[in-house]
Amino acid sequence: MRILLTVAVLVAGAGNARADEGMWTFDNFPSAKVKERYGFSPDKAWLDHVQKSAVRLAGGCSASFVSATGLVMTNHHCAHRCIEELSSAKKNFIADGFYARSPAEELTCPTMEVNQLLEITDVTERIQNATAGKSGADFAKAERKAMSEIEKACASSKKVRCDVVTLYAGGKYDLYRYRRFQDVRLVFAPEFDIAFFGGDPDNFEFPRYDLDVSFVRVYDDGKPLKLDDWLRWSPAGAKADELVFVAGNPGGTDRLFTVSQLDFVRDVSQPWSLIYYSELRGVLEEFATKGPEQQRTSQSLIFGVENSLKAWKGREATLVQPGFMEGRRTAEAAFRAKLAADPKLQDTPGAFDAITKGEAAYRGFYVRAILLEGTPSASRVVPAPFGFRGDLFANARILVRLAAEASKPNGERLREFTDARLPAIEARLASTAPIHSDLEVELLTFSLTKLRESLGADDALVKKVLGQRSPRQVATAAVRGTKLGDPKVRLALKAGGTAALAASTDPMIGLATLVDPDARAIRAKYEQEVDAVVVRESAKLARARFALVGTGTYPDATFSPRLSFGTIKGWTEPDGLGGTRTVPAFTYFSGAFERATGVFPFELPKSWLAARSRLDLQTPFDQASDNDIIGGNSGSPLLNQKAEVVGLIFDGNIPSLGGDYYFDDATNRAVSVHSSALLQALDRIYGAKRVLEEIAPAGAPGSSSVGAH
Amino acid sequence: MRILLTVAVLVAGAGNARADEGMWTFDNFPSAKVKERYGFSPDKAWLDHVQKSAVRLAGGCSASFVSATGLVMTNHHCAHRCIEELSSAKKNFIADGFYARSPAEELTCPTMEVNQLLEITDVTERIQNATAGKSGADFAKAERKAMSEIEKACASSKKVRCDVVTLYAGGKYDLYRYRRFQDVRLVFAPEFDIAFFGGDPDNFEFPRYDLDVSFVRVYDDGKPLKLDDWLRWSPAGAKADELVFVAGNPGGTDRLFTVSQLDFVRDVSQPWSLIYYSELRGVLEEFATKGPEQQRTSQSLIFGVENSLKAWKGREATLVQPGFMEGRRTAEAAFRAKLAADPKLQDTPGAFDAITKGEAAYRGFYVRAILLEGTPSASRVVPAPFGFRGDLFANARILVRLAAEASKPNGERLREFTDARLPAIEARLASTAPIHSDLEVELLTFSLTKLRESLGADDALVKKVLGQRSPRQVATAAVRGTKLGDPKVRLALKAGGTAALAASTDPMIGLATLVDPDARAIRAKYEQEVDAVVVRESAKLARARFALVGTGTYPDATFSPRLSFGTIKGWTEPDGLGGTRTVPAFTYFSGAFERATGVFPFELPKSWLAARSRLDLQTPFDQASDNDIIGGNSGSPLLNQKAEVVGLIFDGNIPSLGGDYYFDDATNRAVSVHSSALLQALDRIYGAKRVLEEIAPAGAPGSSSVGAH
Repeated sequence: MRILLTVAVLVAGAGNARADEGMWTFDNFPSAKVKERYGFSPDKAWLDHVQKSAVRLAGGCSASFVSATGLVMTNHHCAHRCIEELSSAKKNFIADGFYARSPAEELTCPTMEVNQLLEITDVTERIQNATAGKSGADFAKAERKAMSEIEKACASSKKVRCDVVTLYAGGKYDLYRYRRFQDVRLVFAPEFDIAFFGGDPDNFEFPRYDLDVSFVRVYDDGKPLKLDDWLRWSPAGAKADELVFVAGNPGGTDRLFTVSQLDFVRDVSQPWSLIYYSELRGVLEEFATKGPEQQRTSQSLIFGVENSLKAWKGREATLVQPGFMEGRRTAEAAFRAKLAADPKLQDTPGAFDAITKGEAAYRGFYVRAILLEGTPSASRVVPAPFGFRGDLFANARILVRLAAEASKPNGERLREFTDARLPAIEARLASTAPIHSDLEVELLTFSLTKLRESLGADDALVKKVLGQRSPRQVATAAVRGTKLGDPKVRLALKAGGTAALAASTDPMIGLATLVDPDARAIRAKYEQEVDAVVVRESAKLARARFALVGTGTYPDATFSPRLSFGTIKGWTEPDGLGGTRTVPAFTYFSGAFERATGVFPFELPKSWLAARSRLDLQTPFDQASDNDIIGGNSGSPLLNQKAEVVGLIFDGNIPSLGGDYYFDDATNRAVSVHSSALLQALDRIYGAKRVLEEIAPAGAPGSSSVGAH
Repeated sequence: MRILLTVAVLVAGAGNARADEGMWTFDNFPSAKVKERYGFSPDKAWLDHVQKSAVRLAGGCSASFVSATGLVMTNHHCAHRCIEELSSAKKNFIADGFYARSPAEELTCPTMEVNQLLEITDVTERIQNATAGKSGADFAKAERKAMSEIEKACASSKKVRCDVVTLYAGGKYDLYRYRRFQDVRLVFAPEFDIAFFGGDPDNFEFPRYDLDVSFVRVYDDGKPLKLDDWLRWSPAGAKADELVFVAGNPGGTDRLFTVSQLDFVRDVSQPWSLIYYSELRGVLEEFATKGPEQQRTSQSLIFGVENSLKAWKGREATLVQPGFMEGRRTAEAAFRAKLAADPKLQDTPGAFDAITKGEAAYRGFYVRAILLEGTPSASRVVPAPFGFRGDLFANARILVRLAAEASKPNGERLREFTDARLPAIEARLASTAPIHSDLEVELLTFSLTKLRESLGADDALVKKVLGQRSPRQVATAAVRGTKLGDPKVRLALKAGGTAALAASTDPMIGLATLVDPDARAIRAKYEQEVDAVVVRESAKLARARFALVGTGTYPDATFSPRLSFGTIKGWTEPDGLGGTRTVPAFTYFSGAFERATGVFPFELPKSWLAARSRLDLQTPFDQASDNDIIGGNSGSPLLNQKAEVVGLIFDGNIPSLGGDYYFDDATNRAVSVHSSALLQALDRIYGAKRVLEEIAPAGAPGSSSVGAH
């Protein structure tokens, strides 16, 4: 019953989204509704302050300014890549943690980028005028061109980042203008063992005991950034049932998906992804048993793969829930009937059929498309092809494509090579982060094995890539023979452009060049026969929804700043024995010590064991709330009515993953570190005085709580 | 359209199954229908001869007698376990092949059992009388008791095996009486590289180039078995579109599944299995890269895991086919309406709801059930728990349960420990086959990791099993500490019974003992709340089908002897680029040489490269036919109208895997080695004169073809 209701509301796209549902844009927050439910209404000043204080990490996370001098709080797992890149076999900051005792000790993250949202401008008319009357390849080309031109005109310097964001599945286009910061330095990180205590078994689960935090600092022209808007700290955190907000960048949801789009996910992309990531996980798990260096170098990749896998499992659990798809089918039929009955909207139902046809076509070449090109994603520098994994191939593809794309007018390039996106590409090519050959061989071997398995040994491209060799032979030759692990080589090839590439004998460049025509062809096929259809037809449906129920609702997540509201609370779930169990809203320090076994992933760091007697074990550690969040929200601050930090979002529970398709407030929970746990750990375990003084300066509200708690 | 038609027919269970569909029992073969379609009608003598010549391998395959002195033809992959068990690091018969040049060189397979069907007796009334008016636990207990008693009374000695087979989802129970042979010796096997040429990439695919054959010999009282019924060889094999038969033991199909049962597979067991096997495959693939010994010892397990995985993928492709489930839903609704309209059958539709309820309950504890107990299967000695994989744990569980079960009356024991099944248990405990500790550690580590991941770190059983240790620590201690790799130790513990077990300090016995109460409890829950319900209610539906459309149809496969008919032919399939391609019915020797790369799994053995000039490269190698088969049919003879061998079934194509749920004659194909390829390889590549002389004796029809082809 609960499902059907929610679904009906969603499909109708009604403004009366129920309960605490919604990832709201800052320019359309339902303050009146919050007031009605909770007696508090965030005003314009409150919203502006939070919008400027909460930032985006361009790599795919959220964060917030928590001091006047550019200190940024985010999750450990959001800075994991930076921490790992700064580590070596000698100085392992992942294992041991990191703390800069002075400004000079703050270390530059090779590829981290922070975005602060300054302005939102509606550009719907400009895009829709450009695409009016067009379809297929023409539509895709015109849309891409219009977006790239708007972005280019907006991005006045490298310090400004402009993204055209497609909202309401094409019903609205907004231009988001950000300040872009690329000088970001590591300040503090705890040990991985406590940042990810419980590891994969506890990931997306609760009760949870993680101190998943890190602090970095944004520099501007070589100095710590000065700020007016930054978040203060709550003295005691939030209580059960207290109203709380999450300001962050949810990466993507598909709540407006039609039934045929959901069918595609359930029947095609989801099983494929579950199988792919499961097998890759197995390979990497076993690879890590080969030795301590293999273990160290594969850890963050394993973490990422396991995270993707569990996210797919969570979404799967929602899609196969009894009654879910039937509910969507019924609701869609009702919406179609409503459209057909409206004289002005009578031709809209055809959009459903057009989307169904596009999805049906995609079934015919989906596997080839993701093997050669990967899944398009707003947060990725380049789509990662599933048939050619690894950093070395990715760099080769960037170089091969960059040379070809750079000579084209901005509006005609592949989206990821437009001027607005070049700074990220350049940062990647210049990165000094180490690349691990042993791991690269395994990744590429695995990918090529999947390529042959999926397309068949008789496929022309497979024959072209493998010839008379095995996947392992091809992968080994390419990885051992390439020089692309060296940033200087990459930058030289970039500078040399097409001529340098043509002259190159680098085997990874050779592989990327060999595959490129097929990859571009299947991407074009996808863009024309699927994506252009879906965007165009979804926009029709979106406009119909606006016409029927108004614009008082929230758009699907798009990895751009959003605000959600909710309360601190637990939930009830099946117990796996045929019954149910209740899960409380808080865990406490004491629980971490009870759960510890001394073996990863349940091993507490030495610092914790040593500090045990100094800790108040009744301090709340992690907490659950029913804020509507999704992947990308990691690192978001959890705020009270005063816009004070009461927690740090780092996860959701398993049902929250189903939030991709709908929000069920009975079970969907965001998971955060409690603000008191953060303070006490920084103080009593890590003695991180520099950080503490910044975030809770002496004399400011809350400072007394640090020592006295 | 095709789908809907087939489905409608299946759900109604009509006698007019279309095209070449059907895995028919020998006592209900539709000879008249075959006559009508193909002008040939197998008579009683033909059927009896084939029934006695085609045999079952109790481990899960099919085979046939092909000489008067007990020679049995089956697949290489059906004898793989035997060949591997007879191998060592020094004598690798898997890699090098095997040929006994004299009777003395024939080597005994440690655990192979051959069953020859002698008689079928209808025992429906006895079972139905025993279960009449019962439900839940009482039903399950009464059914088990009645079956065990009938089997015990029938099995007059160890040389006789009796199985009560549940047909038509409980509509009929037949007693199958077999001659049981446990002295089986290896005669011939080619190299693995040609028996499984193309490996996993080509498995379930076509075009195919496999010589998946082996010959073993059945001994009786220490001498080669003398036979009256055995299959002769066709001189030239079959032509395109020729009528052919497959006599074998299809393991299991679910064509009578209700919609709620199919939903359960698609939503619960299938995704779980795909994920489990994919990850395990990844672990084992990478394990095999650790060294040549790891590669050798894990090969057959990898093969098995990949085979299971691809089978699940194939079934999945059918279940998610657009329109498939809707078709089943529509057909089921129509059947319900028909039942409701019949005064005598009006209470039958309730059976659908009862089954739906049973499946819904199962969702609540499925994962726990298969982790602790595994999936019940007629062809397994004991169900293999997914949470405790490996031969050592399996042996421990057998010993722990055998001691407990042996003291109970036969009718009250767990099914796999009834008197009729004890010979298989004993053979397993006594087996001298080596057990590889390194691999066992990986398997048990993986299993325990899955156990913790799936049930959660807070689960009481997980805590009991792991305590303060990691999965790897527990697995390593149990595998390194156990003595159960030694058959003498196993047999001593068996002989010592409960007292010996209680006194044992063996850690694997300890683990199996620790888990047993929980495992038995969840099994009992499954048997009472799910299985008993499904069996009882499905039987109601089966009886209603008999009443409505008669008994002129075939039952779902049950790993008992069946006969199917069809013709040699290719098919048309999607090409992965959005179009289609046609697949021809035959491959030729020449194709194997073209496909060879010199690297596994596309490496031809030296014997083939050396014999190339002696071969007629235009000889048909493998072939496709539209016989209705499924897993378990591996090793079945493909026969012409004269009951002569024209091929050796070893596989089906990907759509054949969907045959679990329905038969689509447009795409479902059985794959066999062509009889001419077998003859020519034995002659010109292997010089296996002893085998050739037996199967095509001089002067007999066909013998001339060997040399002259």
